[in-house]
Amino acid sequence: MAVVTILGAGDMGTALATPLAANRHDVRLWGSDRDTAIVRALQLGEPHLRLGTSLPRNVRAFSATTAQEALAGAEIVVVAITSDAVRLVLDQVAPHLGHPRAIATVAKGFDPGADGAEILLLPEVIAEFSPAPVVAVGGPSKANEVARSIPTVVVFAGEDTGALALSCDIFRTDAYCIESTPDIAGVEIAAAMKNAYAIALGITDGLERVTGLPHHNLRAALFPLAVREIGTLIDLYGGYRKTADGLAGSGDLQVTITSGRNRRLGERIGRGETAKQAVTSLTAAGTTVEGFLAASFGYRLAQGFIAAGRAVPSHFPLLDALHKILSEEAPPLPALWNAIQPSSRLIGSPG
Amino acid sequence: MAVVTILGAGDMGTALATPLAANRHDVRLWGSDRDTAIVRALQLGEPHLRLGTSLPRNVRAFSATTAQEALAGAEIVVVAITSDAVRLVLDQVAPHLGHPRAIATVAKGFDPGADGAEILLLPEVIAEFSPAPVVAVGGPSKANEVARSIPTVVVFAGEDTGALALSCDIFRTDAYCIESTPDIAGVEIAAAMKNAYAIALGITDGLERVTGLPHHNLRAALFPLAVREIGTLIDLYGGYRKTADGLAGSGDLQVTITSGRNRRLGERIGRGETAKQAVTSLTAAGTTVEGFLAASFGYRLAQGFIAAGRAVPSHFPLLDALHKILSEEAPPLPALWNAIQPSSRLIGSPG
Repeated sequence: MAVVTILGAGDMGTALATPLAANRHDVRLWGSDRDTAIVRALQLGEPHLRLGTSLPRNVRAFSATTAQEALAGAEIVVVAITSDAVRLVLDQVAPHLGHPRAIATVAKGFDPGADGAEILLLPEVIAEFSPAPVVAVGGPSKANEVARSIPTVVVFAGEDTGALALSCDIFRTDAYCIESTPDIAGVEIAAAMKNAYAIALGITDGLERVTGLPHHNLRAALFPLAVREIGTLIDLYGGYRKTADGLAGSGDLQVTITSGRNRRLGERIGRGETAKQAVTSLTAAGTTVEGFLAASFGYRLAQGFIAAGRAVPSHFPLLDALHKILSEEAPPLPALWNAIQPSSRLIGSPG
Repeated sequence: MAVVTILGAGDMGTALATPLAANRHDVRLWGSDRDTAIVRALQLGEPHLRLGTSLPRNVRAFSATTAQEALAGAEIVVVAITSDAVRLVLDQVAPHLGHPRAIATVAKGFDPGADGAEILLLPEVIAEFSPAPVVAVGGPSKANEVARSIPTVVVFAGEDTGALALSCDIFRTDAYCIESTPDIAGVEIAAAMKNAYAIALGITDGLERVTGLPHHNLRAALFPLAVREIGTLIDLYGGYRKTADGLAGSGDLQVTITSGRNRRLGERIGRGETAKQAVTSLTAAGTTVEGFLAASFGYRLAQGFIAAGRAVPSHFPLLDALHKILSEEAPPLPALWNAIQPSSRLIGSPG
């Protein structure tokens, strides 16, 4: 039995209590300032406000002010904070982190660094606050299914094989299956970028709404292009291209385009809203759209590789189109269609 | 302007008249014995009985008995017959095939050969009837969208570069974008096998129906596994593994699991019908379930590679599970779950 403290009582943080509790660990779920109402409900034995599930009996919920108690003696710390708040929250709880044997992160995105101008992966941010080895979690895992023990397969990534093995042992159950890989950068990039590309694919849902005609062929054609671009980004970053073809890339993109905020942002844009309108209204509803931020980070990352002569623009036609749609109000269908055309020429179509 | 004769007035054959007519070719749509009612409706200017669209004005529909007239002077012949009837129909029209510059096939599946014991790709079957170079068409293309000029990206494959270039030129429009590749075996195997794997993924939809709980994580986890197995089959066959990661594999699987007969077969099995019951009731409704046949052919193909020492069973856990579900009434969820577990160990999960 291990002491496991989950930071963040949002959907995914809370859901992970299910496999951990099934394995009879001492599980503590700590909510940040944003989670006050959720934690109160859970402490009263009521269901999670969004997930609809109650906490397993052996899990305790902790409020934002009780980080010290929640983290005391934690052997595994799980970071389940939206990417844009990871730095803030870690800064807040850092004095109480102690010496965990691993820090697992299910947060998905990039961080601009302390100076706001960098493009950091979240394990790098975590490393600023703790020397503990980091394990990144990727793969298709909707929280509402994980919370209900519906079969889920994820991938854990880490360079420290001991911390990776320990984390797999602690989380793995009959319903929560875990692959493992050393490619932490690949899993992190795939986890972040699939949210960005889900916006692009979600646009086709909006086109369907606005025209009354399905655009399934277009969505499906964008899918392998998205996976290929994620693989190229990973490759340039020094990770394994094949990570994009597995659970963390292709698999997670597959589930992300079936539901969720990023798909919904795309759908709104496809229906005719500008990206700014769509982001504003989704954010007003208290929703973080991580893919919107990831698209911007990813675009800058790609531009950096291009500027360094390590890539050419035709490696990222879809990311470029997404950037134009999100930042320059480019009409979405022509932008997507234009993105897909060069890919045909790349393969060497004759004529 | 070229003379193009489409064999088969089903959904896809009829849909392809749209890009061809847009390019102002002399397009003839020939219906087999199965298509009598469809051809009659189209000849009267009425909509296609399933597609709901009328033929473009410059396309003529021909009934089964007028193959000679339909094929006279055809420069491109398009085979748009369900895979299990390709041999039968080609045998019927062979005397009138003439000397086309290319035969394009959108049929998807395998053929048991004249003796019923082989595993042939459809281009091999076509070659028995004509020396014309064959071009295989793959990629995500729902017929109802192609017929309505909704943006679609497909892949044309052929070893004869002249015939491939000609076919691309003749079909390509602003709404029908074409990649090309020499990997005809890869495209054919992907086109056939994605129907088989769509059954496996469709099972998760049935589990959702019967339990009231979404199984999106499981479906998404099966997706990259399916693509990987398709790639392995292609690789063993001598094609390009990467074809599975592109439009013909990942892209077409993506659209196939959103709708269609193969997904529906899986859904029925997931809801508790035996494969036999489900196939019987779908077939009684006049529906060919090509993935059911493809699963059997693909399984035998894989077994052949394993028997020859070129592969091991762990290369095809999902295909094996599908075989057990379809042929041995194995309970679907445990079979799928069992298939996915070894893949975690393959990557080297510790402990």
